[in-house]
Amino acid sequence: MEKAGLLPLRFVEESGTLLLIDQRKLPFQEEWFDATAFDDLLFSIKEMVVRGAPSIGVVAGYGHALNIARRVRQGASLQVIEADLESLLATRPTAVNLQYGARQVHKAFLQAFQEKSDSAAAALVEAHRLYQEVLDANYQLSRHGLSIVPKGASILTHCNAGPLAACGYGTALGVIRAAHYAGLEPQVFADETRPRNQGRLTAFELQREDIPVTLVCESMSGFLMKCGKIDLVVTGADRIALNGDSANKIGTYNLAVLASFHKIPFFIAAPLSTFDRVTTSGEAIPIEFRAEEEVLTFDGARHAPPGVKAINPSFDVTPSELISGIITEKGILRAPFEESIAAALFC
Amino acid sequence: MEKAGLLPLRFVEESGTLLLIDQRKLPFQEEWFDATAFDDLLFSIKEMVVRGAPSIGVVAGYGHALNIARRVRQGASLQVIEADLESLLATRPTAVNLQYGARQVHKAFLQAFQEKSDSAAAALVEAHRLYQEVLDANYQLSRHGLSIVPKGASILTHCNAGPLAACGYGTALGVIRAAHYAGLEPQVFADETRPRNQGRLTAFELQREDIPVTLVCESMSGFLMKCGKIDLVVTGADRIALNGDSANKIGTYNLAVLASFHKIPFFIAAPLSTFDRVTTSGEAIPIEFRAEEEVLTFDGARHAPPGVKAINPSFDVTPSELISGIITEKGILRAPFEESIAAALFC
Repeated sequence: MEKAGLLPLRFVEESGTLLLIDQRKLPFQEEWFDATAFDDLLFSIKEMVVRGAPSIGVVAGYGHALNIARRVRQGASLQVIEADLESLLATRPTAVNLQYGARQVHKAFLQAFQEKSDSAAAALVEAHRLYQEVLDANYQLSRHGLSIVPKGASILTHCNAGPLAACGYGTALGVIRAAHYAGLEPQVFADETRPRNQGRLTAFELQREDIPVTLVCESMSGFLMKCGKIDLVVTGADRIALNGDSANKIGTYNLAVLASFHKIPFFIAAPLSTFDRVTTSGEAIPIEFRAEEEVLTFDGARHAPPGVKAINPSFDVTPSELISGIITEKGILRAPFEESIAAALFC
Repeated sequence: MEKAGLLPLRFVEESGTLLLIDQRKLPFQEEWFDATAFDDLLFSIKEMVVRGAPSIGVVAGYGHALNIARRVRQGASLQVIEADLESLLATRPTAVNLQYGARQVHKAFLQAFQEKSDSAAAALVEAHRLYQEVLDANYQLSRHGLSIVPKGASILTHCNAGPLAACGYGTALGVIRAAHYAGLEPQVFADETRPRNQGRLTAFELQREDIPVTLVCESMSGFLMKCGKIDLVVTGADRIALNGDSANKIGTYNLAVLASFHKIPFFIAAPLSTFDRVTTSGEAIPIEFRAEEEVLTFDGARHAPPGVKAINPSFDVTPSELISGIITEKGILRAPFEESIAAALFC
């Protein structure tokens, strides 16, 4: 019997309240953050109260729908709503799911607006639909992923692509959870994932489900591969170009190069909403640079000498040549990726 | 005019006191740790009050010499002194300099003992000689290293191989310091180096000398290389086998694989005392596993969920195929390494 994953958000229909579990405080404190007000929504995404591309997408959908309802009540113009949408889209530049979620809701709103039906209600219906779409997609891609997990596989993953990142199911961890419940007995090495340390969320989520997990530093991945301790690498993604180049948390590219060198399969697990339908190659994917303070501190405590500077690219792009396959709800896409991705997205 | 590097140790001749700067507390506090008592010496090496292969070697030499003097005063037998030596050698298994330093001092002691001359004095003379040998070697290897640094080079380094690690001069940072004072204007990316965060020592040391330095997480190395931001990788080493395979701080192997993939030169800088004269290949180098708490904490503060386990291999071995050259006091050794190393060590 599968355990339910941790939920990153709660939408309270009666009061129109959007609550987010504060992922900055997990696993030590379970605090809910009220992201109902538009400013608080922007803050929650920028500051990573909510994180993980699919979860951000769903939260952006609800947040935009709530803001539309508020603006409609205020009698605001379309321009005001569109300016708000732009602010929302600007919170985090790399993850495309944010754009997907917000734009889908906006489209539903605009259509109802033009048809003079209840546009706020239409936006909220679309937000609900998106949430369900993400859950279904993650559930299905996790089942498809079973075929790449050998019995007893030792799997290395990076950052966190579990229930918290993906609305209660998981992408990379969805595959691992499905393998666990299918009796394949996977065991996991979870990268710490400096500077934001999301590996502890992965460890926390897997531990809850009694899936064996060992926390490691990013520096240990090559060592583990060389010792034959890794059978498979699986990560999530924040944006995938039409040629398969995949942006994900900084450090993913290192793993892909190392996996290729050691001839270890490297898979991305992501729903189709993670594909950027207009970007043809990874070179065009914008990389978010976050505050250098994240590198100079650990959980807020300064560890670097005064005056030292840092850089903090938050994502990198793994070229599709290094990717064995992309696990989606429509099956596992493989090279040539232009063709398999086009077929999955547009056919 | 070159600035003097930070000194990791002070030997006070009059009182026979061995003081170590507590590298666990730098760069925030400058505290001196008294390692004169044998137990405190063992603690200081195990717990990394002193770290860095060349510095450990010199400290082991002084520590053994001091302990010999004490044991001789006590009228202890040779067996007691040899048992102490074994305890000292067991403190850290990977760095060969520790063995080299302690054994050289032991040899000088034994010879004087057999000749019935002042064996304690002979041991101390040898410890002094070793210290000077390390300083000379690092100074010379740093000059040889100049030839591999292009003007304005952007250099990635890992862990800390500067004055603190190498008795006041430096190996990898020795090369960088020499390049700086030769007007080559190097700039440095310093890996944070989880779990012990020695990158901040590198940043601290370079900053003192106005060498531009940027702190990065290990996860960022591939990104930087792919963007063309890295011209050269230089690290130190803790033990080098006769075929050139080099053990160094965990994460060095990742950099070597990534550098190879991006066709970026990867150099090791180490004095000849870092070569293991009986080990023919990296596979025979023992890898120290340290407490998992180092991974589960950051500067002593727990960041991982309760109950989660970790592993903590402290070193990895980079095969010589991935090494462009090994910078030593006898020049830069290159492939075929068996030959160049044998010539440097034994000719």
